Amino acid sequence: MTSTVDTSKPDLDQRRAELANRLDHLLPAGTLLTHAEELRPFECDALSAYRRQPLMVAMPKTVTEVQAVLRTCHDMDVPVVARGAGTGLSGGALPLEQGVLLNLSRMDQVLEVDVPNRLARVQPGVRNLHISDHVARHGLYYAPDPSSQIACSIGGNVAENAGGVHCLKYGLTVHNVASVAVVTIDGELIRLGGAGLDASGYDLLALIHGSEGLLAVIVEITVRLLPKPVHAQVAVGAFTRVDEAGDAVASIIASGILPAGLEMMDRGCIEAVNAFLDVGYPDCAGLVLCELDGTEAEVKSQIEAVSQILRDSGATEVTVSRTEEERLKLWSGRKAAFPAVGRLAPDYYCMDGTIPRRHLARVLNEIKILSERYGLSVVNVFHAGDGNMHPLILYDANMEGELERAEKLGGKILEACVEAGGTITGEHGVGIEKIDQMCVQFSTIELQQFHDLKAAFDPRGLLNPGKAVPTLARCAEFGAMHVHGGQLPFPDLERF
Amino acid sequence: MTSTVDTSKPDLDQRRAELANRLDHLLPAGTLLTHAEELRPFECDALSAYRRQPLMVAMPKTVTEVQAVLRTCHDMDVPVVARGAGTGLSGGALPLEQGVLLNLSRMDQVLEVDVPNRLARVQPGVRNLHISDHVARHGLYYAPDPSSQIACSIGGNVAENAGGVHCLKYGLTVHNVASVAVVTIDGELIRLGGAGLDASGYDLLALIHGSEGLLAVIVEITVRLLPKPVHAQVAVGAFTRVDEAGDAVASIIASGILPAGLEMMDRGCIEAVNAFLDVGYPDCAGLVLCELDGTEAEVKSQIEAVSQILRDSGATEVTVSRTEEERLKLWSGRKAAFPAVGRLAPDYYCMDGTIPRRHLARVLNEIKILSERYGLSVVNVFHAGDGNMHPLILYDANMEGELERAEKLGGKILEACVEAGGTITGEHGVGIEKIDQMCVQFSTIELQQFHDLKAAFDPRGLLNPGKAVPTLARCAEFGAMHVHGGQLPFPDLERF
Repeated sequence: MTSTVDTSKPDLDQRRAELANRLDHLLPAGTLLTHAEELRPFECDALSAYRRQPLMVAMPKTVTEVQAVLRTCHDMDVPVVARGAGTGLSGGALPLEQGVLLNLSRMDQVLEVDVPNRLARVQPGVRNLHISDHVARHGLYYAPDPSSQIACSIGGNVAENAGGVHCLKYGLTVHNVASVAVVTIDGELIRLGGAGLDASGYDLLALIHGSEGLLAVIVEITVRLLPKPVHAQVAVGAFTRVDEAGDAVASIIASGILPAGLEMMDRGCIEAVNAFLDVGYPDCAGLVLCELDGTEAEVKSQIEAVSQILRDSGATEVTVSRTEEERLKLWSGRKAAFPAVGRLAPDYYCMDGTIPRRHLARVLNEIKILSERYGLSVVNVFHAGDGNMHPLILYDANMEGELERAEKLGGKILEACVEAGGTITGEHGVGIEKIDQMCVQFSTIELQQFHDLKAAFDPRGLLNPGKAVPTLARCAEFGAMHVHGGQLPFPDLERF
Repeated sequence: MTSTVDTSKPDLDQRRAELANRLDHLLPAGTLLTHAEELRPFECDALSAYRRQPLMVAMPKTVTEVQAVLRTCHDMDVPVVARGAGTGLSGGALPLEQGVLLNLSRMDQVLEVDVPNRLARVQPGVRNLHISDHVARHGLYYAPDPSSQIACSIGGNVAENAGGVHCLKYGLTVHNVASVAVVTIDGELIRLGGAGLDASGYDLLALIHGSEGLLAVIVEITVRLLPKPVHAQVAVGAFTRVDEAGDAVASIIASGILPAGLEMMDRGCIEAVNAFLDVGYPDCAGLVLCELDGTEAEVKSQIEAVSQILRDSGATEVTVSRTEEERLKLWSGRKAAFPAVGRLAPDYYCMDGTIPRRHLARVLNEIKILSERYGLSVVNVFHAGDGNMHPLILYDANMEGELERAEKLGGKILEACVEAGGTITGEHGVGIEKIDQMCVQFSTIELQQFHDLKAAFDPRGLLNPGKAVPTLARCAEFGAMHVHGGQLPFPDLERF
């Protein structure tokens, strides 16, 4: 699967020289990287099993430079892959050997902070956490954190419509962005959205969110800011059965309380965490972490209600943080879950599917059966409040066939999510990783509508080709091989 | 402007007969209305200054019937205007004399309620309030209320992305819908969205919201339900200066409190209300109503904070409801504002623009100047929390030229909203009413992108033609007549 390309192929060399020659006239010195050793760091994003060297890397600093690159590529029919910080987990920023990698990390300025309207206008390469740091002196912050906020950039967050621990209460990226400026493949600058709650015209702003670089290149984002909550506490409940933990999650949501985080871990994950650091989670089958934030009065009344629900649902133990230190300690286990699991096996494959909350226990059980069938352990940690699961498949890439088996098992898990009325991605995007599962989730009619829509922005298909939306031919092939005896699935009228 | 059409034109008669003949084979008896007297009730929506008789009205009861109508119209190149309850204020459901009016009011069934996941699957003709009534026994409700919830239908709410008093806290329609099923102009059924927070693929679900019937016909909606808040209280502050009231609104938002409603009225509106019913609002220049809902502890702590902010901002009087009866009474004036204003003049024209909150005082002042210039009174009532203004222009349709003057003044007010960084519609949509102002809000490049996107759904432009998105030719003409000395405005890089 690793497909590092010999960049010295003569036709590629010629194309590279021709394109570099044209771009050199339009861009400041140092904007283009063309040598093999300069290209290597850009071979992959955080889905590092897939690697390709791009034709060249462009590192623009201004909107005008982005326009020049896109216009030139459009003229010469060269595909373009935009990239933020490269923290994406689905290979969305995997380069093309015959295409330009448009790296936006040098566009990293906060352009304007509008305190009364609680907006910040930023460039796409600004890191997620940097926004909050920058506006902290006004008592404000940017709420969404896709767990990688130290590293990931806001442009990538928009392209993937990133979620995270807090999205149950504070929404996805799309709910926290007021407007964006994008450059289309023919170099035109378009502004989408506005400062108001709603804008006239079709909602292109929402459309750009999660479009994974296929429609346009994001060059500016105006994010909504929130006042920092004055108080936060976390309650942790331990359960002897996973389905009880799932029910507790459903009951918390049903009570009308909207937690700032509502997470679950299964036994495999709890054991890994306890072995990794001194957090002292109880030895149990399922752990529910529920964070409340707001004013002190609000949090106090809600944390009591949540503790009661956890006990009523069968929790054998409920711990509530009394200090900020205790709160951070209780969270530390959840935050360290991935590295902790990383110690259980040489490699793990992080899945990302979303299911209706009521099917949590059912899908966990199916994962267990699939795990046994494929002979690979799976541990589970998830954003339970919004049904976003992260099954981690443990494998050893040095063992013949294990990676392929892990990928197949991953595909089956995603298909189980779709069958339960869910989706194949909660927050990591489709990219290259889940493109075949798109065939399971969508009908040919629906996929064709996606292609028609893509053509309205990028008729020649130059932006991030081969990602996110499979061709119908690809689905036919995948369907014939894997799905329902050769029949492509059609939309299920009862699918939620 | 009233353009009731002579439906006996021979070419229309022939077309009507031909289409009815084909549809009669496909639809149950009683589905088609073709006689002039049957068509009259469908001449207009709530923007009743514009009237046209449709070629015929189709009243389908099932998705299959909708598909049959659209497929036939597509075959015969007949345009189609979809209509819900006809409560729209921008003429979005104004029929075409050569087109079918697709009335969805008979598709009025709640199909499924999923209590654990808090979802309800409903047909498009279900009235907004009926959803809440239907799920009340589970302690749930559907949050958005575009003030017309007794009458308006959920399909129309989606088509217009309806807002209302509560959208500051609970979001617009798009934030409260999990998925929709739509039929495209060629009769294909597509499902958009899912039960999860996010879906893979382009966000067609958001795109359909507010698309005003131009992309597809909505035939099923799965709405998100919320638990009914257990407690609510309202605080009302009276101000001697409108700008102080505006500052109070900004300060409440800045404090991090998220009210369930945050409304403002100016002197003209307060006087009209006090003359209309016994609510006893103080005689003042500006009134701020702030509602809090949630648990009792939450509301109690927040209502105190809000009262303090109102006083600190210069309120001469702050009233807080102590009982549910008092709360409803304090709201009754706001809720009756439109009929109360209706008594001030024979007619009024309700505008709907959105501006950044910080510019409230500035835009109110501009409206005052415009009002004097055009010689027509304007009173103001608005969803201050999200900057959505409803200036009501008072006029007398029986006075020669007053309607035209009111329309011109309305256009100028919307342009002032755009200049302040706002939009020409907060929640009423563009429809036929504001189509020229779209030329002020968007550049030709942006409008062209809208047209390309429309073509991806409806290449022949049969769905609701002439609404929501103006042709570039129309904008050129409008621009030449009205805007910036013949120059079409280009996107303002600083417009938020």
